[in-house]
Formats: sequence, C-alpha cells, structure tokens
Amino acid sequence: MPAARHDRLPAKKTARGAAGPVARFRLRVTAGEVIAVGPGKISLLEAIAHTGSLTAAAKSLDMSYRRAWLLLDELNRALKQPAVDSAKGGQHGGGSALTDVGRELVVLYRRIEDRAAKATAADMKRLLGLIAG
Amino acid sequence: MPAARHDRLPAKKTARGAAGPVARFRLRVTAGEVIAVGPGKISLLEAIAHTGSLTAAAKSLDMSYRRAWLLLDELNRALKQPAVDSAKGGQHGGGSALTDVGRELVVLYRRIEDRAAKATAADMKRLLGLIAG
Repeated sequence: MPAARHDRLPAKKTARGAAGPVARFRLRVTAGEVIAVGPGKISLLEAIAHTGSLTAAAKSLDMSYRRAWLLLDELNRALKQPAVDSAKGGQHGGGSALTDVGRELVVLYRRIEDRAAKATAADMKRLLGLIAG
Repeated sequence: MPAARHDRLPAKKTARGAAGPVARFRLRVTAGEVIAVGPGKISLLEAIAHTGSLTAAAKSLDMSYRRAWLLLDELNRALKQPAVDSAKGGQHGGGSALTDVGRELVVLYRRIEDRAAKATAADMKRLLGLIAG
C-alpha cells in the first residue's frame, strides 16, 4: 500500500521549517451553526479514499471510530449528496469509498488551499519576517 | 467618528448571504505552541487603529480589557518589534496607536486574505454549490 497521502499535509502547509513560525490557512464552510466542511473532514475523506474503510481511515488519523463516523455523518448531512458510499456488512464490516461528490469536494478544497498559498506567497514571506519565533 | 472598519469584516469574508453556507479562510501563524498572529489579534489591531485606545478597542469588540491586553501582549512578544505603542498615563489611561510594524502586519494579513479569496473564487463557488444549506 502506498504511503497515506493525507499524512504529508503538514509539510505542504508549512511555509517555514519547524524551527520558525508557521503560517497556515484553514478553509471552513459553515452552514448555520455547523462547520459543514473543514480540514478535519477533508482529511477524513482522503483517509477513506486511501484505506477503503472508515475503520482504517479513523485508525490512520488516530481518531476513534465513533468520532470518524460522527464527522462523516455531519458532512453527509451538510451536502446535497453524500460524500461517501458505505457497503453494508455489519457496523464496522463494510468497505467505504468516496462518491463523485466526495472526490470533487476533496479536489476543490485542496486546490483552493494550493491556489491561495501560491497567490499569497510573497506577502506570507514578508508577514513571517515580522515574527520573532 | 467614522464607522469602525473592523465591523465590516464578516460581510467581506462571506461568499454567500447569511441564508446559505459561508466559506471562510482563516490565516494563523504559529510560533511554537502560540498562535502568534490570527484573526482575533488582527481585529484588535484594527480596532486600536480606529479608536486610538486599547480600552475603546476592547469595548468595540465586546471583549474585556484584560483579554485585549493579554492578546496584545502575546502578539507583541511574538513579533520582532511591537505592533502597538501605548502612551503612559495609568493602567487604562493612555492612548494607543499602531507602530509601523503593526500597520504593516494588518495590511499584509488583510491583503493575503483578499488575494486568497480572489484567487480561489471560482472553485469556492463550486464547493459551496455542493453544500445543502
């Protein structure tokens, strides 16, 4: 199995090494009081895509199955169509895969982060230059 | 006194009206364990710039003086040079104004937000289109 892609994210978002200050964009979409889409849910979708099950995805993120299930349920309710298809077969038994909507959501979210980082790189560098860390 | 500019921020960051889902970028700079720069500290600097004092700034943000003072202290410690000059004159007495560094920090932070929003507007619209809200 290839190295889980969702594990490389911190490096991607880090504008400097661990020794200095770190700038991080977080994109959240709220609908009413609920965070419909945020970094935690997107990482969970990526982990499901790479592991093929919610149980394995939760484990790879060091998250309880219950917490992963609740996050995914909240996400699916927030979307017009669900992001994940879960095969039947007992509570923890079936496999899970992203739907077209789930895949589109991940692509859009990560592309938004990448483009935002690229569009602001010069200013970000100047801002980090003001920090003592 | 002109309307406080820091009060217009929600509208600026809203990709849709209050009725639908709202996408929001937040930029945070961490140095070690501390959030050196984030949306709360930038709003506080803007409020100080507009009101001319930490007391008035705290009040305009519905924040205790103590909380505002602690935020500002944390920010000043995180920066190579302080963001705010406070005139002497008793604990709550003196006026406060942004230093050159404080002004630069606010300009950079808000410009980064603006450019990120512009660079990602099309994808953001597609992403919001997936949300039921």
